[in-house]
Amino acid sequence: MPRRIVVLGAGGWGTALAVVAARAGHRVTLWGRRPEHVEELRRSRRNEAYLAGITIPGEIAFASGADGALDEADGFISVIPTQHLRATLTPVAERIGGERPVLSCSKGIETGSLSRPSEILRETLGRAPVTVLSGPSHAEEVARGLPATLVAASRDEEHAVAWQKLLTGEAFRLYTSNDPLGVELGGALKNVIAIAAGLCDGLKLGDNAKAALLSRGIVEIGRLGAAVGARKQTFFGLSGIGDLLTTCYSPHGRNLRVGRELGAGRKLPEILASMKQVAEGVWTCRAARELGRKHDVPMPITEEVFAVVHQDRPAIEGLRSLMRRQPKSESEDLR
Amino acid sequence: MPRRIVVLGAGGWGTALAVVAARAGHRVTLWGRRPEHVEELRRSRRNEAYLAGITIPGEIAFASGADGALDEADGFISVIPTQHLRATLTPVAERIGGERPVLSCSKGIETGSLSRPSEILRETLGRAPVTVLSGPSHAEEVARGLPATLVAASRDEEHAVAWQKLLTGEAFRLYTSNDPLGVELGGALKNVIAIAAGLCDGLKLGDNAKAALLSRGIVEIGRLGAAVGARKQTFFGLSGIGDLLTTCYSPHGRNLRVGRELGAGRKLPEILASMKQVAEGVWTCRAARELGRKHDVPMPITEEVFAVVHQDRPAIEGLRSLMRRQPKSESEDLR
Repeated sequence: MPRRIVVLGAGGWGTALAVVAARAGHRVTLWGRRPEHVEELRRSRRNEAYLAGITIPGEIAFASGADGALDEADGFISVIPTQHLRATLTPVAERIGGERPVLSCSKGIETGSLSRPSEILRETLGRAPVTVLSGPSHAEEVARGLPATLVAASRDEEHAVAWQKLLTGEAFRLYTSNDPLGVELGGALKNVIAIAAGLCDGLKLGDNAKAALLSRGIVEIGRLGAAVGARKQTFFGLSGIGDLLTTCYSPHGRNLRVGRELGAGRKLPEILASMKQVAEGVWTCRAARELGRKHDVPMPITEEVFAVVHQDRPAIEGLRSLMRRQPKSESEDLR
Repeated sequence: MPRRIVVLGAGGWGTALAVVAARAGHRVTLWGRRPEHVEELRRSRRNEAYLAGITIPGEIAFASGADGALDEADGFISVIPTQHLRATLTPVAERIGGERPVLSCSKGIETGSLSRPSEILRETLGRAPVTVLSGPSHAEEVARGLPATLVAASRDEEHAVAWQKLLTGEAFRLYTSNDPLGVELGGALKNVIAIAAGLCDGLKLGDNAKAALLSRGIVEIGRLGAAVGARKQTFFGLSGIGDLLTTCYSPHGRNLRVGRELGAGRKLPEILASMKQVAEGVWTCRAARELGRKHDVPMPITEEVFAVVHQDRPAIEGLRSLMRRQPKSESEDLR
């Protein structure tokens, strides 16, 4: 049954998800924070800054501010960058509230509060049932209609099943999960491992070293996840390993790029200044390190990424110190 | 303490492991099946056919046939291709037997018998304690001294720890595991998933589709592993996911290449004729399918790979049929 869906956030992934929802037959409004950007989208039907080369289908409407589309929506897809999520939604929270379902697609952890996007949504919107969406999903490919398989997670798996039914199409498939915490943490923490993978690339350490780093990285973030109440297994699925792969092996990845350039010897401010979009891992590595220390979870990769990114430690020293750790029993780690 | 180690098998990986053992300070003999190839190695100190661009260090000796080095060895590293392992070792089994430890580094499953390399070693060599080595390890990178991290597994983990101590060096690190079955099966079955990843590349389905296919592929081979007595978790470690990554994202991968060319429309005999080395997945997909059917484990990816490789099914149809499966709960799969 077609629904009225508002996609909150007109970046690359928001635009791609609006296209997905429209393809699935729904009446879609793409809502953006900045009226002038929304006006430009409406006029040109292109989102060149965030999703180059894609024409936005004619049936998608646009909105900004306290638009009536918010009141009329049957459900929301929230794709606002994590660090802006609270400030962006607070002024319009009353128009979004109620019991209408929200699909949370932001990735990251809010600096300071260490809140996850779904927590921010609950704090600003009240009792709306929140489902979390994550998985390997470069926006450009999804918008172009190439196949993608993701996971939708909610504690009561029925909410995830409802979104699965709403959005599934020829090329867009959703598994469900009842571990939203694990799915959401995977999507955030993998960006830290992506920076480490980039360091490895930048230092030209080869494919073996990179693959080992990713394998150990997933074990590390799964260990943190388990300590805070997620299921370790979730990190071995689409939202953990799956997402990590596109992030680490595709040339588009922003976090990979930050790592590569740090590995090649450039300085962080210079790298960030040259990028149009956020590299969430730069902030997430700080949050992950804090979480690890708070819960007494050893996070050697995260510690080294943090030191290289924020404490001027040379990349080669960070990687060398990881290599010098005496390997133990992998069976213990994976238990 | 330096030991006398014979590396059985003078292919690319055997040559690289001989270099690793020599770097760790041992007295190493590289033993090859074909005397004329061994003679060429001795003369040129290069193994151009299997490991281009590497000079074999002067302290490595060479042997073939029933050489005295076999009798004098303290331990063996077996790196003979799985399909030739039984026939190659049988004539010299008495010279290798006894209680001297063997590190099994072959990957694959013997066609017909469905035996794993460690089983073939036990059947031909008797009571030698066998440890299995696997993980992300392109031979060229290892020989060049780039960092690599693998896993050594034996039911009694002490044997694995002994090999860890013998071989660990500045750039070569070994985790241990007590699940040799899982480690060995991962190294074999990942080649089937690598062919599927190649089909995905050949059909230009994009990074999202490939990452999802790998994530689901690991779940599938882990399910088969669990059914035959391995631990599912092992497939999420270095010998499962880790090895799968180098196989699927590095341009050197032979199984990936077979998949890519099938995906692009070439025929199997033509592809195999153009390759110098074995693409194990071509045979492993048959064995994996048989094992799955025998144990009643659903293996959709393996079934489609088999059909494309051996039954002339067009690659696009195989992939489409995978995409049409209705996704269920990922939490169930990962349990």
